[in-house]
Amino acid sequence: MKIAIVGSGAIGLYYGAMLVQDGQDVSFLMRSDLAAAQANGIRIVTTDGEFTLPEPQVFGATGEIGEVDLVIIALKATANDAMPELIAPLVGSETRILTLQNGLGNDALLAKHFPGNKIFGGLCFVCLNRIAPAVAQNFVAGSVSIGPRDRRDLDDARKLVELFSSAGVKTRLEENLTLVQWKKLVWNIPFNGLAVAAGGVATDVIVGNPELLEEARALMAEVIQAAGKLGCEIDAGFIEKQVELTVPMGAYRPSSMIDFVEGKPVEVEAIWGEPLRQGKAAGACLPKLEMLYALLARLCA
Amino acid sequence: MKIAIVGSGAIGLYYGAMLVQDGQDVSFLMRSDLAAAQANGIRIVTTDGEFTLPEPQVFGATGEIGEVDLVIIALKATANDAMPELIAPLVGSETRILTLQNGLGNDALLAKHFPGNKIFGGLCFVCLNRIAPAVAQNFVAGSVSIGPRDRRDLDDARKLVELFSSAGVKTRLEENLTLVQWKKLVWNIPFNGLAVAAGGVATDVIVGNPELLEEARALMAEVIQAAGKLGCEIDAGFIEKQVELTVPMGAYRPSSMIDFVEGKPVEVEAIWGEPLRQGKAAGACLPKLEMLYALLARLCA
Repeated sequence: MKIAIVGSGAIGLYYGAMLVQDGQDVSFLMRSDLAAAQANGIRIVTTDGEFTLPEPQVFGATGEIGEVDLVIIALKATANDAMPELIAPLVGSETRILTLQNGLGNDALLAKHFPGNKIFGGLCFVCLNRIAPAVAQNFVAGSVSIGPRDRRDLDDARKLVELFSSAGVKTRLEENLTLVQWKKLVWNIPFNGLAVAAGGVATDVIVGNPELLEEARALMAEVIQAAGKLGCEIDAGFIEKQVELTVPMGAYRPSSMIDFVEGKPVEVEAIWGEPLRQGKAAGACLPKLEMLYALLARLCA
Repeated sequence: MKIAIVGSGAIGLYYGAMLVQDGQDVSFLMRSDLAAAQANGIRIVTTDGEFTLPEPQVFGATGEIGEVDLVIIALKATANDAMPELIAPLVGSETRILTLQNGLGNDALLAKHFPGNKIFGGLCFVCLNRIAPAVAQNFVAGSVSIGPRDRRDLDDARKLVELFSSAGVKTRLEENLTLVQWKKLVWNIPFNGLAVAAGGVATDVIVGNPELLEEARALMAEVIQAAGKLGCEIDAGFIEKQVELTVPMGAYRPSSMIDFVEGKPVEVEAIWGEPLRQGKAAGACLPKLEMLYALLARLCA
């Protein structure tokens, strides 16, 4: 299968490299990392060791890649304004599009611009950082949950799950993409958000500080409430599971926090703005998320 | 009357200098500003012009000042741990103590350590910054509200009001000190707090940003709710009055914001921690104040 990976952050590098290792025909669209990948290949560091793709198929423009069977979007959502035009050369009538982006609104944007194509979302529950150009490090193997935007495309989603599973990525099929997006937000909203708003701290500071941990729990409860108003039921026990899951991460730096301290665009609208607007429109009461969003919008402006 | 001013920030410099100009016998306790005041005097810049006290009575230790009739505390509340011991040499059996400090808990601390003395609080509704050692600038003339900790001392509070009024400071008597402390918190909690948490911004950024202004309004509503639970009724219309009052301040830098960006201790417990604890203990629901406090406690640690 001919696959294009759009975006060479940690997510694009890691899953693209895993698919190459499994024998797939993968082209990487890169910007800042292009020269490094051409010179040194793509390197993946995991808890079990590391591997390098010495001669990955890397490109600086989508026109050089042409139409593919599957486009995997691993851009930051802050690049979404230019994304439809960027990926257009990759998309033929049968091309499927899988977005691995954070937050809400990404699959809707794709559906709007590519109404004839099947759209899928993949949520990566993983601790991955890009530690150097064309080098990604995986701290926690984690898993990917893939679901179709339109439930009639469930069988195609299953094939994507098989594609990732065959490449050694623990992957599960989710019938309800919106539900799993909200489940990921239950973690991202408090932990990425407080990591930025508390001054650029790692997750160990949040779970180790009683006041911040209480705020994280309360934010999770708000997100679960918002999801519920939108028809996505998440059990309240999910909150403590997220805390238990975060403790062993140690001093993990969420991607938004890294972007913030490095002065790069932060996905404020996808992760906080859009969930807040959708939740409030559905009647949820989200006082802490409002405060966090207002601060982040200013801090990351 | 022999008066000691303890603390040479903007508040201590300004009100002390006004009292000297009115002929009072004022001794200033200073630390970092002592040499500057000895060399160049104390300078006060106001919207109407400026004046200098060429040879103020400045001291580096309270023991050099000795007992006075009135101690005026203009220290930051972050120095309260050492404050009782610091002022003890100034306090005789008849000495009155007036704290001009921000937040809650200051008069209670004084009453605990000086149970035989009359304690008063003064809330300064003013825009004052210390712009250089021993130099204070007054952007808005403002007013001071003085009240007794114990209502039986109302007549003595009236004499303090006359003392300040005679020195040209617009001053009013408040029977209910706790009420006026909460009224000042209605402004300080949102504006000092958001100025820090939004990354070190001036008040014009808060009133000019729709999301931050909404958060400021919501925080004010929470503070009014907390005050109400503690028996201090503040009219809801007070919120818009605070907004109207803040707009003409322009790019005013609240003292906590200046302390934050300069890496100095911020009065987190007096302004946010203690009001939050008292409000919650009284049954108020303060989700935004909780979030703001948790962030500030970490940001200013």
